[in-house]
Amino acid sequence: MKDRLWKEITAAKDRLGGVAHVTPTFTSSSLDQIAKSSVTFKAENLQLSGSFKFRGAYNALSAISEEARKKGIITHSSGNHGQALALAAKMLDERAFVIMPEDAPEVKRAAVAGYGALVVSCEPTQAAREEKTRETIEQTSAVFIDSHDDLHVIAGQATAAVELIEQSGPFDVILAPVGGGGLIAGTAIAASHLLDNARVIGCEPAGADDAYRSLAAGERVLDFVPRTIADGLRTPLGKLNFEIMQQLVDSIVLVSEEEILQAMRFVWERMKLIIEPSSAVAVAPLLSGKIGGKGERIGVILSGGNVDLDSFFSLFAKTSGSLSQS
Amino acid sequence: MKDRLWKEITAAKDRLGGVAHVTPTFTSSSLDQIAKSSVTFKAENLQLSGSFKFRGAYNALSAISEEARKKGIITHSSGNHGQALALAAKMLDERAFVIMPEDAPEVKRAAVAGYGALVVSCEPTQAAREEKTRETIEQTSAVFIDSHDDLHVIAGQATAAVELIEQSGPFDVILAPVGGGGLIAGTAIAASHLLDNARVIGCEPAGADDAYRSLAAGERVLDFVPRTIADGLRTPLGKLNFEIMQQLVDSIVLVSEEEILQAMRFVWERMKLIIEPSSAVAVAPLLSGKIGGKGERIGVILSGGNVDLDSFFSLFAKTSGSLSQS
Repeated sequence: MKDRLWKEITAAKDRLGGVAHVTPTFTSSSLDQIAKSSVTFKAENLQLSGSFKFRGAYNALSAISEEARKKGIITHSSGNHGQALALAAKMLDERAFVIMPEDAPEVKRAAVAGYGALVVSCEPTQAAREEKTRETIEQTSAVFIDSHDDLHVIAGQATAAVELIEQSGPFDVILAPVGGGGLIAGTAIAASHLLDNARVIGCEPAGADDAYRSLAAGERVLDFVPRTIADGLRTPLGKLNFEIMQQLVDSIVLVSEEEILQAMRFVWERMKLIIEPSSAVAVAPLLSGKIGGKGERIGVILSGGNVDLDSFFSLFAKTSGSLSQS
Repeated sequence: MKDRLWKEITAAKDRLGGVAHVTPTFTSSSLDQIAKSSVTFKAENLQLSGSFKFRGAYNALSAISEEARKKGIITHSSGNHGQALALAAKMLDERAFVIMPEDAPEVKRAAVAGYGALVVSCEPTQAAREEKTRETIEQTSAVFIDSHDDLHVIAGQATAAVELIEQSGPFDVILAPVGGGGLIAGTAIAASHLLDNARVIGCEPAGADDAYRSLAAGERVLDFVPRTIADGLRTPLGKLNFEIMQQLVDSIVLVSEEEILQAMRFVWERMKLIIEPSSAVAVAPLLSGKIGGKGERIGVILSGGNVDLDSFFSLFAKTSGSLSQS
């Protein structure tokens, strides 16, 4: 499995060459001081479509024959995968259908439509998404591409870690947020091939700790109601993703909602990068002391930057006293 | 003059090599569509100290002999030059005194102090700044480094445009904001040496249009009260800066406060980069159609990212309806 996936990662890197951005890496001396570590950030918020998801979506779409995808492609997504697939479809001149929950951030919905995809709304539950997707496939015969539980998607997401290691490696630890598990699974495979003895640690909101509980239980925990501002991480863990994580992920660290907001603000203010709450989940453990303190070389994947700014302006304006770093 | 300055720019580039960040450049397909141009942004908001000012400050400080600077260095600054000089002094192990107006953003004041410089407050007028600076020099014998009206500062700032042209040139037009004129003067000299027939256009808030009026009058307009949110551009034009601008700057474009805020929001939301209002002044003409529309290659220097986030969260939360792009 690991070797097959590594082969897929190499193929993904070829397909994405000259298409996806080779996003820059950043360091922050003030963060290094706080975390007593040497931290490098991979800025996938600057990736096409505003998140790492473009890598997996474009790779999966390119891996389908033109003949097979001529009826269009379809997915369900809370946002970033939908944007990514819509953009990939536009670049490859295909039709895209994106099933989105009604409570997805408006900025993400507008972006999907802006890339020319047809947005189909559904109730904000996993069951409703899947049902609406089945209905739409019946009507259109479009090909389904899952946001995370897909070999080509995982291989595409892995290329972010491969680049990070090429640009700024080696690392002792790599941190990435965990939603459906596409990024963390890809990152873990990349790290296991390219680094010696590195720990890959998944980062989850305490309010959506299904990966944490799944790894502890030895089986996927699927019946949970996520409660977190990190809208990209509300997805249940995929089957293939969980299998890879069981083998290759060292541990999961949990962070609170307050820690997520503080980390998001830190990166906006100090590093001048707009990241979304899901990205901040992988920064928060460094600020709160849950990770770090030993002078290790730590790589962090900043997964995306698609934020509904209006809602955060209101939130931060209300709570600026307690969240201020200065 | 031009040749001497080019020699100083080459020397500055050597001094800054391996010290300053070679900041990345960015493009935005949505901006290109709006501006009907091919635009490249130089992200000096990601420079050390959070703005291009580090280049000039470090270069000027390095150009002084260790003997001459052993009593410390001093400047007056509304913010970014102060931060930059404080950091440069820290890196070169020198004492720094920074005279700051009382109304400077708190985040900038905290950053100057954070780099270990002594912050001395004064009334928010040019006369008060200069008087307080004279007083402090008498007490300390520190060496004064002006924020803009200084050959070494101009040469340092010029290295941002030199890099931009090396990374992504050639260009038909280069845009940069105008405050005291250090960045625009350096940019104009760099462009005149490295580009054929490029126009260098300065960008100013209509509420601080002293460069616009000075070029029209043929002499520096110094008696004005700046009224703009772009706190980095409230400085009067320097003497040397004006001379260079008269020879090498094509024109000045003016933008409104509303245009500045819209441009700032555009870059935050679409490009995922935190820029300060002064930087947005050089983006606004592309969004409003004052520049562009001809398919030209345009370089834009995003000058800095030091924002008092709290004040903008409140401002944007209040006005999000009228400023929203989505």
